[in-house]
Amino acid sequence: MAEQINIGIIGASGYTGADLIRLLATHPYTNIKLMTANSHAGKKLSQVFPHLSFVGDVDLVANEDANWEGVDVAMSGLPHATAQQVIDDLPGHLRVVDMSADFRFEDVKTYAQWYGHDHQAPGLQKKAVYGLTEYYREEIAQAQLAACPGCYPTAALLGLLPLVRASLIDVHDIIIDAKSGVSGAGRGLKEDKLFSEVAEGIHPYGIASHRHAPEIEKELAKVVGQEVIVNFTPHLMPMNRGEFLTMYVRMTDGVSASDLRAALRERYAEEPFVMALEEGAPTPATRHVRGSNFCLVAVYQDRVPGRAIVMSTLDNLVKGSSGQAVQNLNLMFGFEETTGLMQQPLFP
Amino acid sequence: MAEQINIGIIGASGYTGADLIRLLATHPYTNIKLMTANSHAGKKLSQVFPHLSFVGDVDLVANEDANWEGVDVAMSGLPHATAQQVIDDLPGHLRVVDMSADFRFEDVKTYAQWYGHDHQAPGLQKKAVYGLTEYYREEIAQAQLAACPGCYPTAALLGLLPLVRASLIDVHDIIIDAKSGVSGAGRGLKEDKLFSEVAEGIHPYGIASHRHAPEIEKELAKVVGQEVIVNFTPHLMPMNRGEFLTMYVRMTDGVSASDLRAALRERYAEEPFVMALEEGAPTPATRHVRGSNFCLVAVYQDRVPGRAIVMSTLDNLVKGSSGQAVQNLNLMFGFEETTGLMQQPLFP
Amino acid sequence: MAEQINIGIIGASGYTGADLIRLLATHPYTNIKLMTANSHAGKKLSQVFPHLSFVGDVDLVANEDANWEGVDVAMSGLPHATAQQVIDDLPGHLRVVDMSADFRFEDVKTYAQWYGHDHQAPGLQKKAVYGLTEYYREEIAQAQLAACPGCYPTAALLGLLPLVRASLIDVHDIIIDAKSGVSGAGRGLKEDKLFSEVAEGIHPYGIASHRHAPEIEKELAKVVGQEVIVNFTPHLMPMNRGEFLTMYVRMTDGVSASDLRAALRERYAEEPFVMALEEGAPTPATRHVRGSNFCLVAVYQDRVPGRAIVMSTLDNLVKGSSGQAVQNLNLMFGFEETTGLMQQPLFP
Amino acid sequence: MAEQINIGIIGASGYTGADLIRLLATHPYTNIKLMTANSHAGKKLSQVFPHLSFVGDVDLVANEDANWEGVDVAMSGLPHATAQQVIDDLPGHLRVVDMSADFRFEDVKTYAQWYGHDHQAPGLQKKAVYGLTEYYREEIAQAQLAACPGCYPTAALLGLLPLVRASLIDVHDIIIDAKSGVSGAGRGLKEDKLFSEVAEGIHPYGIASHRHAPEIEKELAKVVGQEVIVNFTPHLMPMNRGEFLTMYVRMTDGVSASDLRAALRERYAEEPFVMALEEGAPTPATRHVRGSNFCLVAVYQDRVPGRAIVMSTLDNLVKGSSGQAVQNLNLMFGFEETTGLMQQPLFP
Repeated sequence: MAEQINIGIIGASGYTGADLIRLLATHPYTNIKLMTANSHAGKKLSQVFPHLSFVGDVDLVANEDANWEGVDVAMSGLPHATAQQVIDDLPGHLRVVDMSADFRFEDVKTYAQWYGHDHQAPGLQKKAVYGLTEYYREEIAQAQLAACPGCYPTAALLGLLPLVRASLIDVHDIIIDAKSGVSGAGRGLKEDKLFSEVAEGIHPYGIASHRHAPEIEKELAKVVGQEVIVNFTPHLMPMNRGEFLTMYVRMTDGVSASDLRAALRERYAEEPFVMALEEGAPTPATRHVRGSNFCLVAVYQDRVPGRAIVMSTLDNLVKGSSGQAVQNLNLMFGFEETTGLMQQPLFP
Repeated sequence: MAEQINIGIIGASGYTGADLIRLLATHPYTNIKLMTANSHAGKKLSQVFPHLSFVGDVDLVANEDANWEGVDVAMSGLPHATAQQVIDDLPGHLRVVDMSADFRFEDVKTYAQWYGHDHQAPGLQKKAVYGLTEYYREEIAQAQLAACPGCYPTAALLGLLPLVRASLIDVHDIIIDAKSGVSGAGRGLKEDKLFSEVAEGIHPYGIASHRHAPEIEKELAKVVGQEVIVNFTPHLMPMNRGEFLTMYVRMTDGVSASDLRAALRERYAEEPFVMALEEGAPTPATRHVRGSNFCLVAVYQDRVPGRAIVMSTLDNLVKGSSGQAVQNLNLMFGFEETTGLMQQPLFP
Repeated sequence: MAEQINIGIIGASGYTGADLIRLLATHPYTNIKLMTANSHAGKKLSQVFPHLSFVGDVDLVANEDANWEGVDVAMSGLPHATAQQVIDDLPGHLRVVDMSADFRFEDVKTYAQWYGHDHQAPGLQKKAVYGLTEYYREEIAQAQLAACPGCYPTAALLGLLPLVRASLIDVHDIIIDAKSGVSGAGRGLKEDKLFSEVAEGIHPYGIASHRHAPEIEKELAKVVGQEVIVNFTPHLMPMNRGEFLTMYVRMTDGVSASDLRAALRERYAEEPFVMALEEGAPTPATRHVRGSNFCLVAVYQDRVPGRAIVMSTLDNLVKGSSGQAVQNLNLMFGFEETTGLMQQPLFP
Repeated sequence: MAEQINIGIIGASGYTGADLIRLLATHPYTNIKLMTANSHAGKKLSQVFPHLSFVGDVDLVANEDANWEGVDVAMSGLPHATAQQVIDDLPGHLRVVDMSADFRFEDVKTYAQWYGHDHQAPGLQKKAVYGLTEYYREEIAQAQLAACPGCYPTAALLGLLPLVRASLIDVHDIIIDAKSGVSGAGRGLKEDKLFSEVAEGIHPYGIASHRHAPEIEKELAKVVGQEVIVNFTPHLMPMNRGEFLTMYVRMTDGVSASDLRAALRERYAEEPFVMALEEGAPTPATRHVRGSNFCLVAVYQDRVPGRAIVMSTLDNLVKGSSGQAVQNLNLMFGFEETTGLMQQPLFP
């Protein structure tokens, strides 16, 4: 049996922090030794997240008061810009799993351009591995610092990468229409996240300017060896969790939707968390993966000649964040990759 | 002051019928003399739709028992296939406003192909006028039978027609990603409309097979004089009302998003119900039109060179159905077009 | 035909302000001449509330910059504590309709006790009339300042007053279990109003401490001539609008649920906005009044001997606030009481 | 380590069946050998519940085609009336966990009175044990047939039983105002469960006639040795899962809310799934238990002298049905009671 490891959670008072705690509560080989939350330091976890009362009464401490002795790994749910500084200050013995955007870009110039300020820990960036588990397993297993992908890039790349790698679609004609639940925007106070501003409606946001676009593009660019620009248009929906990406692609000459489907099914046949639907399977829905680490991908023939529709859906807080973080943790510490992650979707 | 007209509503027990009654309740020149509802004949309206209790106690009758004497116009909220037969049997003195799909296709072959059976009233089809108010005003004013467009086609065409007419976009590269509330699917019992099957999630439906695609296509084809095929991919969302269309278009060489925006703003400058947003206006949302007859259209520059994003949103039961029906009714009887339709959107 | 009056709206950037503007937009005898919103001064109304774009481009000004010349009446949607000072500073020629709690308590000590600070305009309080329209019509018509009731008190009192007046129930054994949509809490930023904190769940709040309890109690006390304490327990629900009160009452000896029902039906037989349901009518629901100024009340026999259940439902932003404000405005200026308020409920 | 047992699920195509499969998927000592679903016989589980695709491709069979050889226990998610006949026909070697109402009433006359027909398996009723785990552990461990309580009775009794047993409250003055999500009503097609009939609103149902009232009453009657009648008024809310009970009680002379709280905290101090909140804890909410087998109970002092408010919340599909069924299964087969049930609540 695997040995127990000690975990310190940074930024435990956000939604990703909370979902990480939820998942780790039934992970047999982990022990949460430490939780930080600067804005809630001194409180009990159950005051900040009453749904975690059953986990036990844990004290939240400030980052500066954290005692990292005996801790094996830091998992950070801090938002971007904040995470880089805090992680840079951690003791050297710690391995790190970061769920922010701070270490996702190999090129710190791209980071600076899209996030509006210079990277504060460029040296650490060099050691970071992009934590898209299904594509960087070996690097992640060895990583000092795993930078978990954004929720949208995870969903997009799991659907697109096998197709782009096999040159089945035109990488310069990709349109990604995304629909997301509200939890992806975190727990911070903003008028546009108030119930009455979200319920009973839908609207796009970040049109042609969302920061997950360059993250998708840089991974596609790695495959084709040239710059890639995609359309990425997210919409905010009245639901808590879940992300649905409808991706409109132009197929290479002679390629059919069946070819695309076959490529996805072959690529993911042995993957425990990604399922490529066969023809005729029930239409994918965010409900089919809610609360779980699973991702569904599917392909449909378009009526427009030469076009196909690729769909991808996952739970933004699990496979899109905390679940993938645990998946990477398992790799980094030699546990079976599915450990603690086989909770089935919650429906209804 | 205009004279009062008498209206008979056919199919009053569906959601479109109910919304028609809601709108007509404050219309100063109309009097509902008759309501039919075969499955609820013998009941009071307030038993079927308690929210309409305040309109007064009206008896629902079967179609076959309806007395059309003294009635000026029949407005039908029956579903497709049912409507054509019932309307064909109406007394000849009646003018008709139909909200079903039955008389929308000039070419009954297209109808037969997409709706799966031969048209039962091809003769009547010849007299029908497509009721997209902003584009067929004169014809509608004279029409014996106005066939109100589908909710999706209304939204799509209001956004696309000015652009296609001015050759600003490539009509063969149009992708329409649509998101709709549940009321568009009516009140009939189906598992996929149960609360628990819709709430807290999203999924596409009718992928590459939705019947509103050919309706959009035939109107675009009229403009360009050749067959048009568009991608049309609707998604079902957890909200009652509202439709949001995100349309991805390729611009003609040399054309910019500003040109598209200018074309829409010019076209709709004088329209009472369609507003083309200026640059920098708040991002459109279904919430901005809920419960009203308004439609918002907007244009955004894409990051992908040569591409733009056209958005269109309306309330599927109002501008997408009953509201547009009243707008057409007003034209047909010489009332001011906005009569009874200036109720502002309900938000939150 | 009535003359047009000029209205100034104070606090136009809150939800009650917005709903007031929505209603007045189709009121034939009113003209909004002025809108104040301190936190949004300098903006257009359409930037703050895009759903009101169709009303026309109105500039929001600061309270201190408001020009009240030519204005007949000020209608205030400011929150409590803020309203009293601003209203006290208004020019003397203005009549006032206030939707806050500031002038609802004849006894300023009760105000001080429950709202935690001394009243800032006790002199003005003396001139205020409690704006529960159905019970204070004559006073309101003459009022300089109408203090519109809270949303919960409106619903509670419309259900209870006829029963208490006729001594049909024990005023000392009243339990009011209330369920409300989120808009009642306004547009201010608070974590507990975030979508993810409200959706897919319910919880009580203000248990045994909600400020609408003393407002209900003081009106009941007026009837019975002694102090009254009621149980009032509100719950926050995942919906935008609507309030449902389930009131558990003990009947006086020999009284039956039928007697209660008869008393309500008799009292409201001629009221345009309050409907007491007859036995066997469809069960009331918030959906039946959404977006409208109507209130439904109903009585059911309990299985517990001697007990009955009184239900009352309304839209908190309309009959519970802005709609009742317009109803009072109509009385104050001699318009037909229903003017501008006959919009039917929006369902679904 | 415990031995693996084989389970047959009857009625796998309903929501309780699905949630049972979800929970058992991570139970280490169970193996689902058989799933029946008469209306979907011949289909794969993943066609009926796509969210369970990841469990593996299981065939659904008709009840009459089920092969019970080698199966240790039947768990039934069939609705009442149907369950009794099917369970009566099972082979004698099977132990049974039933989630319907069919075997909850020791007195078959009460069943007949409330469910409208004679019990079809009165003999089997005699062998049944009421499966309220926290109160009947020893009987359940030995039971041939465990009849799991209804969702509302579970929540009500967990809050009330310690108070009634200690004579702290008046058993003849209990008012239970309940709010429930829609999944409690199952997956069957009914108009009042359609999304548009439930979303954005609330309404009561089964007023003074809901079948869970007698179930609550018979357990309270057992304690006090005389007939008990309670007020039980459920409301349907726009959420998938969760139940919140606000119970208004009259305390015995000299008893305070603190006494009630202390009684609950003492009773549940060692219970793994029921937590009695201490004074000052965050207000309970359905969100705090969603998807989990936990139940929260809490007590508040009322402003009305002599009265207190007892609250209880759980997930109707888990602690209110499938979770409690697994808890009972664990007892019946000698597994640790919490096995497979420590999944933490899903929030947001």
